Amino acid sequence: MSKIITIIGSGMMGSALAFPARENGNEVRLVGTPLDKDIIDECRRSGKHPKFDYAFPEGVKYYQFEEWKEAVAGCDFVIGGVSSFGVDWFLEEVLTYLDPAIPVLSVTKGLVNLEDGTLISYPDYWQRGLAKKGIKREVCAIGGPCTSYELVYHDQTEVAFCGKDSAVLKMMKAAMQTSYYHVSLTNDVIGLESAVALKNGYALAIAMTIGLVNRHNGPEAGLHFNSQAGAFYQAVKEMRLLLEMQGASRDCENIGIGDLYVTVYGGRTRKIGILLGEGKTYQEALDILAGVTLESLVVARRVHKAMVRKAELGQADLSRFPMLCHAADVLDNGKDAELPWEAFTFDQTK
Amino acid sequence: MSKIITIIGSGMMGSALAFPARENGNEVRLVGTPLDKDIIDECRRSGKHPKFDYAFPEGVKYYQFEEWKEAVAGCDFVIGGVSSFGVDWFLEEVLTYLDPAIPVLSVTKGLVNLEDGTLISYPDYWQRGLAKKGIKREVCAIGGPCTSYELVYHDQTEVAFCGKDSAVLKMMKAAMQTSYYHVSLTNDVIGLESAVALKNGYALAIAMTIGLVNRHNGPEAGLHFNSQAGAFYQAVKEMRLLLEMQGASRDCENIGIGDLYVTVYGGRTRKIGILLGEGKTYQEALDILAGVTLESLVVARRVHKAMVRKAELGQADLSRFPMLCHAADVLDNGKDAELPWEAFTFDQTK
Repeated sequence: MSKIITIIGSGMMGSALAFPARENGNEVRLVGTPLDKDIIDECRRSGKHPKFDYAFPEGVKYYQFEEWKEAVAGCDFVIGGVSSFGVDWFLEEVLTYLDPAIPVLSVTKGLVNLEDGTLISYPDYWQRGLAKKGIKREVCAIGGPCTSYELVYHDQTEVAFCGKDSAVLKMMKAAMQTSYYHVSLTNDVIGLESAVALKNGYALAIAMTIGLVNRHNGPEAGLHFNSQAGAFYQAVKEMRLLLEMQGASRDCENIGIGDLYVTVYGGRTRKIGILLGEGKTYQEALDILAGVTLESLVVARRVHKAMVRKAELGQADLSRFPMLCHAADVLDNGKDAELPWEAFTFDQTK
Repeated sequence: MSKIITIIGSGMMGSALAFPARENGNEVRLVGTPLDKDIIDECRRSGKHPKFDYAFPEGVKYYQFEEWKEAVAGCDFVIGGVSSFGVDWFLEEVLTYLDPAIPVLSVTKGLVNLEDGTLISYPDYWQRGLAKKGIKREVCAIGGPCTSYELVYHDQTEVAFCGKDSAVLKMMKAAMQTSYYHVSLTNDVIGLESAVALKNGYALAIAMTIGLVNRHNGPEAGLHFNSQAGAFYQAVKEMRLLLEMQGASRDCENIGIGDLYVTVYGGRTRKIGILLGEGKTYQEALDILAGVTLESLVVARRVHKAMVRKAELGQADLSRFPMLCHAADVLDNGKDAELPWEAFTFDQTK
């Protein structure tokens, strides 16, 4: 039975979800944020998102932000497609005014660090913000390795939806799953959201090894993989420790490892990691990537800051996270990108 | 304190270990198998392995197989550098005659399936074979993501040595570790050896997704990563289940995931996986890769066969291993390479 799905945020990820949503026969209403005015104009004109290679499926409806209340009227659920820089905006301008009876599925990946080093998910962050206003609602979320660009290509994609209300999750899955968009379900919100956010500092560090190989061997040596794989191993080790602290389920751990894999290859985090590995300073790397927003580094810094705080409180041992600390030191303390390889070894002999 | 290290097998991996071994000031004796005659001749002539980009460090000594007993005389340990096709040869021609007081460190990766579906490591296989001859010895082994070619480049590399005798492992590590070759130690032999062998079927299946993207989108679409990452996620899930059955430690699991990562990129398994993904039959793929030895597929088939046997005995549930079964069906039953994506989803909601 087809649904009415309203996507708020017409960036690449929100917009890409219009493909499986609409191809399933649902009514799909794509709403731009105030920053997306030109995108919505272009979609109305051409039926194509300016950053995608393919046009939207026939029948997607486009709305400017001023029309958002019209766009959510009668809808079965809202997909929140804002970037992590838009979470407060989404709280204040959308969630505060949205009927709590309409379920929300968010694609925004990230974590927020509280003063005591606790890392909370965006669904939790929003729920706390709404509770202060006397509004009670749950927010569901999407995690897993999925780049928007490839979803538009109908590439086979595995994600998970998390939330506390299983019936709502099943309704969302039935509406969204296609022959190429495969959806697992879990009630483990903090586990899934942690798994797909914690990867950022690690993907950065792994990408550094690509730049380091260029630096040591010259670009003509081509791609080498030993050091990437050694770094991947350590990243998995540290992520599993962090996810254990977050109480994540094993399935969420595995999804986080898949998400780490795709992030090593996908776009911005990779680019800045390679530049740092080649020996650029953080500022030089930023200048080279002028105009690129680096959501991933915000999260990487928050995770590091949270662990530093937990260590101060005697609740974490930073020596177990040499790669996370290294990534933070390269970003913010001018440390050379060469990884502390010996710190990654262990001696488990008796 | 420098050691005398004898490497038996002058294939790429055995030979690459001469670099850290010799650079540490050890005496290094590289012995070819009977198949390596031309390689040893070439090393003697030029000081360079025919497949490497760099010459050996000064001072490595080269031996034809007929001279092997001379080469092991007085040595502190032997590195076994045969391929998995040479394990019986190594048992019968070397281990049977080697003084049990001389420790052995093997680089051969693989597992052997017994009639009841038990998967044993090569160290265990050799020890059983020797025990039948009344010879008692332990064999240590190397696991972890390391391609020989890149070790020669002095790329940063993380491996682990496993064995039952911790003092011997520490001696070997002290002799071998360098600024670029980093060695962890564990007594968990079956865990490490399983971790670095189980990956093969999974690396094959992940590589298939690269070929599938080519098939669906055309080669001009370039590299896509969603399906690789979705497959990587499932591979990690199944490998962790298999490693749990093998009783592997968490550190070995993590190393196995790093090894999976490098194998998706490294050489032969990747090549055949891409061809299968593009729609070639196994036989067509083999013809295209004429002359390439596919050790990895031997192990992949053994692991699948072992799980089928365990399922027959009621000790395993094949439905938990859809990717392993898929890889085996593509290899041996002519199944199309398109992965059973929906079988990779889960529903953990209550």
